[in-house]
Amino acid sequence: ESNSNLIRATLFPGDGIGPEIADSVRQIFKTAEVPIEWEEHYVGKEIDPRTNSFLTWESLESVRRNKVGLKGPMATPIGKGHRSLNLTLRKELNLYANVRPCYSLPGYKTRYDDVNLITIRENTEGEYSGVEHQVVRGVVESLKIITRQASLRVAEYAFHYAKAHGRERVSAIHKANIMQKTDGLFLKCCREVAEKYPEIKYEEVVIDNCCMMLVKNPALFDILVMPNLYGDIISDLCAGVIGGLGLTPSCNIGEGGIALAEAVHGSAPDIAGKNLANPTALLLSAVTMLRHLELHDKADRIQGAVLNTIAEGKYRTGDLGGTSSTTDFTNAICDHL
Amino acid sequence: ESNSNLIRATLFPGDGIGPEIADSVRQIFKTAEVPIEWEEHYVGKEIDPRTNSFLTWESLESVRRNKVGLKGPMATPIGKGHRSLNLTLRKELNLYANVRPCYSLPGYKTRYDDVNLITIRENTEGEYSGVEHQVVRGVVESLKIITRQASLRVAEYAFHYAKAHGRERVSAIHKANIMQKTDGLFLKCCREVAEKYPEIKYEEVVIDNCCMMLVKNPALFDILVMPNLYGDIISDLCAGVIGGLGLTPSCNIGEGGIALAEAVHGSAPDIAGKNLANPTALLLSAVTMLRHLELHDKADRIQGAVLNTIAEGKYRTGDLGGTSSTTDFTNAICDHL
Ligand SMILES: CC(C)[C@H](C(=O)O)[C@@H](O)C(=O)O
Ligand SMILES: CC(C)[C@H](C(=O)O)[C@@H](O)C(=O)O
Repeated sequence: ESNSNLIRATLFPGDGIGPEIADSVRQIFKTAEVPIEWEEHYVGKEIDPRTNSFLTWESLESVRRNKVGLKGPMATPIGKGHRSLNLTLRKELNLYANVRPCYSLPGYKTRYDDVNLITIRENTEGEYSGVEHQVVRGVVESLKIITRQASLRVAEYAFHYAKAHGRERVSAIHKANIMQKTDGLFLKCCREVAEKYPEIKYEEVVIDNCCMMLVKNPALFDILVMPNLYGDIISDLCAGVIGGLGLTPSCNIGEGGIALAEAVHGSAPDIAGKNLANPTALLLSAVTMLRHLELHDKADRIQGAVLNTIAEGKYRTGDLGGTSSTTDFTNAICDHL
Repeated sequence: ESNSNLIRATLFPGDGIGPEIADSVRQIFKTAEVPIEWEEHYVGKEIDPRTNSFLTWESLESVRRNKVGLKGPMATPIGKGHRSLNLTLRKELNLYANVRPCYSLPGYKTRYDDVNLITIRENTEGEYSGVEHQVVRGVVESLKIITRQASLRVAEYAFHYAKAHGRERVSAIHKANIMQKTDGLFLKCCREVAEKYPEIKYEEVVIDNCCMMLVKNPALFDILVMPNLYGDIISDLCAGVIGGLGLTPSCNIGEGGIALAEAVHGSAPDIAGKNLANPTALLLSAVTMLRHLELHDKADRIQGAVLNTIAEGKYRTGDLGGTSSTTDFTNAICDHL
């Protein structure tokens, strides 16, 4: 029964508001006639020993097979001895780069205008090694691991992205004045890749200075590439600049051309099931997935409809100061298509 | 010849614009009749083997003896085999807490109003351990070290500060969801200390979320306490929020009651010697030194005169959009005293 003209994509609706905002994406994709067939997967109710997490092996296999997927918010169940869902996905699917386009939404006022930057985060190593131990009572250590392989891979992705999207500059963010060996290796790899892209400007910015520049004038930046923890910090800072995680798309790039787009906000259990959730982050993430599939026409149309609906201001969900339901907002986007 | 009614304080004018802004502090302190006698020390021209840096042993001894000091910008000379001046000071004087009050300057517009927060940074360990090595070619590691002793000490300082200054809340910033052992120990220590201060509210905020909240609404925070690297990042982010490092005071607290106040901006060699530098950061840092000495009247008077001069707007240096010289700005402050 599967239509061979359709591209199969994995969909994790996720928890809390996840199913509602996933419905919104489905409806809009249908209206825009996006040639995608969703293969839905849910977070398991028990730990799957093959993944040591609540994610099932089958759901990971689905992403591996389809190579594209969209993920709603997942609440990692509390307890010991199993892995966080996000970290499991990154590890098992080798999602080596987290890409977050961050642009001002026309008509939605924050303290900043005309922001248009992309953060590209190394997603597999650094401070997230998980290697920690107690040396003696009261003295503990964590290991930050930087490898040439992962650094080259994310740098390569950043420059490739810059070129493919007609961007001008890549800034490598680091603290190599203190971590000379680890961040030093990261920078060395970025420099090596930069040499292969003479048409893209390259600069290096120390993370503390970068954060100061970002809050003073985010227009100073174009594409930022950085080790895992700095990416975690700076991508959230940038999200704050344009209004928050509810508006920020995110896409994870993995080995073998995998792209797993995701809403990075929480599952908002307080408003779940009440038709109040804002689907924007998941929608704009789905757009990044379409771009990865080179379905630029569809991507442009959907992104345009979302941005126009928000700009018009008539239909906005509560988090953006409006009173619309998820379905009203979704219908308004469909009307704009 | 030394007047025994005067408090002796070490002064490092520093490099570049350092001597000019130090002159400004001296003039204003004289006009305000601050009972301080400066003992000046300069960065050496050669490496002192006793400090393995360009800082002389005598200058460190001066801070140890006087217990209070003020430091202008110091340019760490480039080269291998010796330590950075800032890191030498922190290590040799055991400057365990870096305190940065961050408040909006009335009349000086940024994107944010009414900011009034304090960052308190652990200043001796964490990611700054200096322990790094190459495991095999292409794989390098850095060690982050967190100790119970240093964490308790900085937490104690933060709560003590909160109480002494009538502040309401202390937020501990961390990434214990990833670095469970290191940042987990830091949090554990903060919680222990928090229990001794039931009148001060205590909360824990993950660093990525903290940065997002800070750019959206810095008024959400009061006092922030955190491990070394997060403090480095967040204190600069906060400086950006109120206008930059040229306006931000900083004070380092060391064992045995040492307080070394410092301007954290650079030495600005491009404008050095031209009577163009803005002495505000060094002046407001000197004010934190006066508060440490419990000279609150003098501190209030000088802080008031600096803020009023900037608010009035008639005399401002170039970095604040004005055309005044350092001396004109300094004289204007003296007129306000
Ligand atoms: C939930 C947490 C483990 C995760 C991270 O630290 O990477 C989150 O902050 C993110 O950015 O996806
Ligand atoms: C210059 C550098 C070593 C220093 C640091 O990283 O601590 C600086 O950024 C600071 O905040 O004082």
